[in-house]
Amino acid sequence: MGIFELQKKDRHTSARAGLLTTTHGQIETPVFMPVGTQATVKALSPEELKTAGAQIILSNTYHLYLRPGCEIISHFDGLHRFMHWDRPILTDSGGFQVFSLAKLRKLTEEGYAFQSHLDGSRHLLTPEKAMEVQICLDSDIIMCLDQCLEHPATHEQALAALELTTRWAQRCKTFWQEQTDCRNSLFGIIQGGMFAGLRTRSAEAIAAIGFPGYAIGGLSVGEPKALMMEMAAHTLPLLPSDRPRYIMGVGTPEDLVALVGMGADMFDCVMPTRNARNGQLFTERGTINICNARFRDDDGPVDPACGCYTCRHYSLAYLRHLYTAREILAYRLNTIHNVHYYLNLVSAMRNAILADQFDQFKKAFYSTRQ
Amino acid sequence: MGIFELQKKDRHTSARAGLLTTTHGQIETPVFMPVGTQATVKALSPEELKTAGAQIILSNTYHLYLRPGCEIISHFDGLHRFMHWDRPILTDSGGFQVFSLAKLRKLTEEGYAFQSHLDGSRHLLTPEKAMEVQICLDSDIIMCLDQCLEHPATHEQALAALELTTRWAQRCKTFWQEQTDCRNSLFGIIQGGMFAGLRTRSAEAIAAIGFPGYAIGGLSVGEPKALMMEMAAHTLPLLPSDRPRYIMGVGTPEDLVALVGMGADMFDCVMPTRNARNGQLFTERGTINICNARFRDDDGPVDPACGCYTCRHYSLAYLRHLYTAREILAYRLNTIHNVHYYLNLVSAMRNAILADQFDQFKKAFYSTRQ
Repeated sequence: MGIFELQKKDRHTSARAGLLTTTHGQIETPVFMPVGTQATVKALSPEELKTAGAQIILSNTYHLYLRPGCEIISHFDGLHRFMHWDRPILTDSGGFQVFSLAKLRKLTEEGYAFQSHLDGSRHLLTPEKAMEVQICLDSDIIMCLDQCLEHPATHEQALAALELTTRWAQRCKTFWQEQTDCRNSLFGIIQGGMFAGLRTRSAEAIAAIGFPGYAIGGLSVGEPKALMMEMAAHTLPLLPSDRPRYIMGVGTPEDLVALVGMGADMFDCVMPTRNARNGQLFTERGTINICNARFRDDDGPVDPACGCYTCRHYSLAYLRHLYTAREILAYRLNTIHNVHYYLNLVSAMRNAILADQFDQFKKAFYSTRQ
Repeated sequence: MGIFELQKKDRHTSARAGLLTTTHGQIETPVFMPVGTQATVKALSPEELKTAGAQIILSNTYHLYLRPGCEIISHFDGLHRFMHWDRPILTDSGGFQVFSLAKLRKLTEEGYAFQSHLDGSRHLLTPEKAMEVQICLDSDIIMCLDQCLEHPATHEQALAALELTTRWAQRCKTFWQEQTDCRNSLFGIIQGGMFAGLRTRSAEAIAAIGFPGYAIGGLSVGEPKALMMEMAAHTLPLLPSDRPRYIMGVGTPEDLVALVGMGADMFDCVMPTRNARNGQLFTERGTINICNARFRDDDGPVDPACGCYTCRHYSLAYLRHLYTAREILAYRLNTIHNVHYYLNLVSAMRNAILADQFDQFKKAFYSTRQ
């Protein structure tokens, strides 16, 4: 599984539209994956995700491995039935969360030794373990374990990290190939820090191992926006064009439009969901904060151009009231809107690409959002 | 509005089934009203309430008066459009929340002087003001301002409170009668503490003023369950039988079954919603706590006999995981189940009454719940 069909290449940019086939269904690309860290996209039901147009969600291996644990999820034959979601799921390897959340981690050739941020229990995350857990979760797309880097990192650190990432990628592939049923598609991850030469080296090494899809990791880790874009623009063309290209953990609506223009196919980011819970709502004409006093008695919707459940039934004044009162429904209604915004944006880009109008779309998008 | 049609009296008990007509629709009684304090039933959408069978909800005047305030809600011609709920709404008078939440309250013949629990601002809640605010909210059923009592209270305190409550009830009725359109139905409230003689006196005085419906207030305020039941059993038969009888702020499933048997028609209580948020779930066979370790890998539903969205799609193990992880979806799924349980219980009682089988229903209910 993980067969990618390139349906269309834009004439003027590197943007592309494709179709990715997974065990739980087909995904039209470009695609945005809402983040469901703990086997739930925060504040949403699976039905609300589908209504918003979600084709695939991302869940976090680190969190699920620690709680509720593989033993429990295997009672349900994986994550899909456990969380009542029958469309594709991508899981990360757990490496990034070990790096950002876990305590007392120790990195060796073998893997990450770490203590749980929940209860201090000790664990060892090896490339093989990352495969085993993700296969137990029965994710449609599983990710190689990679070594994440602080930003800024030296050339020496970035080189060491990419070389370890390459050796781990080979171990992941070896373990994965021993699985007979091929239900899970394995993606390789490109590292290399903010060094173009190292990104080239990583892309070549990972592509040489060979995977059904490729991700660019280690972006949006605190570097300036221009540097992130420079690294993406440098790396994307180095990835095999007949495989999906996934930019991990990115980004703003503006980022997505720019990166699709560079040939990226897949994205995940907590921004639509997390910002919703902080009262920030995305609209065609920019981002608003629902706390703003000017919405006190505004009976219009968040975005008149939006067709989501929230915009069809609720006013800015009511959303502001719910948010001010810290009502649970506030988080849901805000999240419904933001997820709909992101999914609609990516779907609109796909339509523009298929119609050979991505360039016009891009110009109109930037001028309206300002 | 507020026309009550008594459809059926049970042969063996005082239970009754009726039809209450309001501006926003008809209500079949007995009825349970989920509590939507701040213009939202915590964690639920209006559609979820309807799916669960909610015919009417209760909202709190004190909270809405303070935030967002009448001025804003009047922009929406009342609460219904503001909160996207087109079925009937009952609001309380605000008196109970002044009594339980507000700071520095001072009670005079005129009304309650109090400071907001939100920002310390000063307000005066008179019987006329309570009418004005509830009419501005455009509630289908509005409640007279009454004087609430601490428990225990002396006979003297309870007598003084019921007499003030009676004078305020007259002022409420006078103000209400000056409204021309009769969209809002006004209910009187019986007080009298835990003294049967005072309950009789209050019931006679309030009935003499004359209202479209009657409520029993001042129960479930910390007294023993047997005393609450004794007061309800004493007071219910004193209320006009051709008007709806509402027991305020009560209670457990067992309470509802007992009180319907005594002739009560309407209930509201935070128990299904609040307990859901605390992980307590009602089932036909008793109440469970979702945190319990025995649910760790239980792939069965909360209640196999339940047809709610939560029971149809989610396992005890998943609900336990969500609750342990403090995920927002946990509060919603738990609340959907509990509200469905309460509404289903009351609807089953109504069907039993209509079929002259309330006595059998009651026996089966108690024996299964134990």
